[in-house]
Amino acid sequence: MQRTVYLNGEYLPESEAKVSIFDRGFLFADAIYEVTAVVDGKLLDLEGHIARLARSCKELAMKNPLTAEDLVTIQKKLITLNDLKEGGIYLQVTRGSSGDRDFPYPDNTEPTVVLFTQSRAVIDSPKAKKGIKIISTPDLRWRRRDVKTTSLLAACMAKQAAMSVGCDDAWLIEDGFVTEGGSSNAYIITQNNTIVTRPLSNDILHGITRASLLKVAEKHNLSIEERVFTIEEAYAAKEAFISSASTFIWPVISIDDRPIGDGVPGPVASQLREIYIEFAKALSV
Amino acid sequence: MQRTVYLNGEYLPESEAKVSIFDRGFLFADAIYEVTAVVDGKLLDLEGHIARLARSCKELAMKNPLTAEDLVTIQKKLITLNDLKEGGIYLQVTRGSSGDRDFPYPDNTEPTVVLFTQSRAVIDSPKAKKGIKIISTPDLRWRRRDVKTTSLLAACMAKQAAMSVGCDDAWLIEDGFVTEGGSSNAYIITQNNTIVTRPLSNDILHGITRASLLKVAEKHNLSIEERVFTIEEAYAAKEAFISSASTFIWPVISIDDRPIGDGVPGPVASQLREIYIEFAKALSV
Repeated sequence: MQRTVYLNGEYLPESEAKVSIFDRGFLFADAIYEVTAVVDGKLLDLEGHIARLARSCKELAMKNPLTAEDLVTIQKKLITLNDLKEGGIYLQVTRGSSGDRDFPYPDNTEPTVVLFTQSRAVIDSPKAKKGIKIISTPDLRWRRRDVKTTSLLAACMAKQAAMSVGCDDAWLIEDGFVTEGGSSNAYIITQNNTIVTRPLSNDILHGITRASLLKVAEKHNLSIEERVFTIEEAYAAKEAFISSASTFIWPVISIDDRPIGDGVPGPVASQLREIYIEFAKALSV
Repeated sequence: MQRTVYLNGEYLPESEAKVSIFDRGFLFADAIYEVTAVVDGKLLDLEGHIARLARSCKELAMKNPLTAEDLVTIQKKLITLNDLKEGGIYLQVTRGSSGDRDFPYPDNTEPTVVLFTQSRAVIDSPKAKKGIKIISTPDLRWRRRDVKTTSLLAACMAKQAAMSVGCDDAWLIEDGFVTEGGSSNAYIITQNNTIVTRPLSNDILHGITRASLLKVAEKHNLSIEERVFTIEEAYAAKEAFISSASTFIWPVISIDDRPIGDGVPGPVASQLREIYIEFAKALSV
């Protein structure tokens, strides 16, 4: 059965959803996106995603075509039309099309807005239970990773490199330190039980799940340190994990073929996953 | 009048040329491109562009959907259908669509192939005569600039920043040295008449015009040095210029509001432009 997707005000069968070859999202990756998790047919951490979308638009001097109300309405309607119980909603906004190709921002183009649903198990995800294996690889991405753009080829290459050696994802290394995962924030838990993750800057995505996670961890009196860490420190960690809207939290059980801790999902990552899900579900809309 | 464009085997009115929202060119900038100049209805430096397209495909493990013969045939047909005398042909190849969104390369997708013409004065270009003003700005791009991908948002931002202060383009700075222009290679001519340009590496595009230019400059016994240079060295240069398939050579008359040389197009850049055009036209097809 075809999904119904949203494109510029219309709800269409997915096979009919097409954009101009002159769309700047297609020609220049002049586009931003968000992925919002859906559980029990409800949207998780929605406020954070709406706020980040607005920030991305502002950073790129791009018109934000959607009010918070529009976004809720469209996403709710897509959930209903596609009978989505669990998974996510992908949203992309581009600067639109000027009808030709030229680098500088054109005046007065109408943004292109695309949303579609993706059905998948996010609560009972096999990878949440088994954990994931990662490789480390140089961070080839551009320098404004705080803006969630569709310039994602470097991330695709990193994940492809991981898959090609039987792993699930990659952690990206720059100047000797881990920046983040291929499409997630990266964390380690030190031998003295401190959760360590890189502080916010232009070097990493300002993860919505990350923000909520740090909030709930603090409430549960877990020790958190926001600082850079090396891959060697990660090898020696008690636990490691990633967070994102698509995964919530997935334990990392090996890095570059070295088992982390006992090589199985650790108790702190598993506990954090539980308390994050509880927190996010309680606030879902 | 509408252009006729090429999309996946079909010649279509430009308004009908659309790609799926699931195309990886749209979702991930998982796409490469080439721009080939057209003068007198003929293609310039074609061999170089065909070779670079094949290299880009190889670097990204992307299927190259077009033989050299296909490329000539399609481009010639577009020139005829659009009665193109002077300008360029844009070509984009994406990894295609798997019908959904997931980072790793999908198996067996058919590449998306788009070509369209752009009519403009390239020989009697006003900017070739008057020269261009540039700003310097940090190089925010990803680390594989040798692969000509559509991850071009950083280049758009740099050019937009230049336009917003009344300039024409930007030179990008990394680790204290000029990498290249927003969509061109960068050159200075020192006080002792040596042409200086950055050597090839993953840090810059392997310009087709650059390669031809260095060849003809050598033939004309001009002194060339391939090495990095700082923006301060550029400020103090006798001349400066850019090269690309869209511009051939454009003299740079000011950088960051500092006039270069006498603040007018210099003789060496103008001479190089003439001999490059003569060379390229003689080999055009």
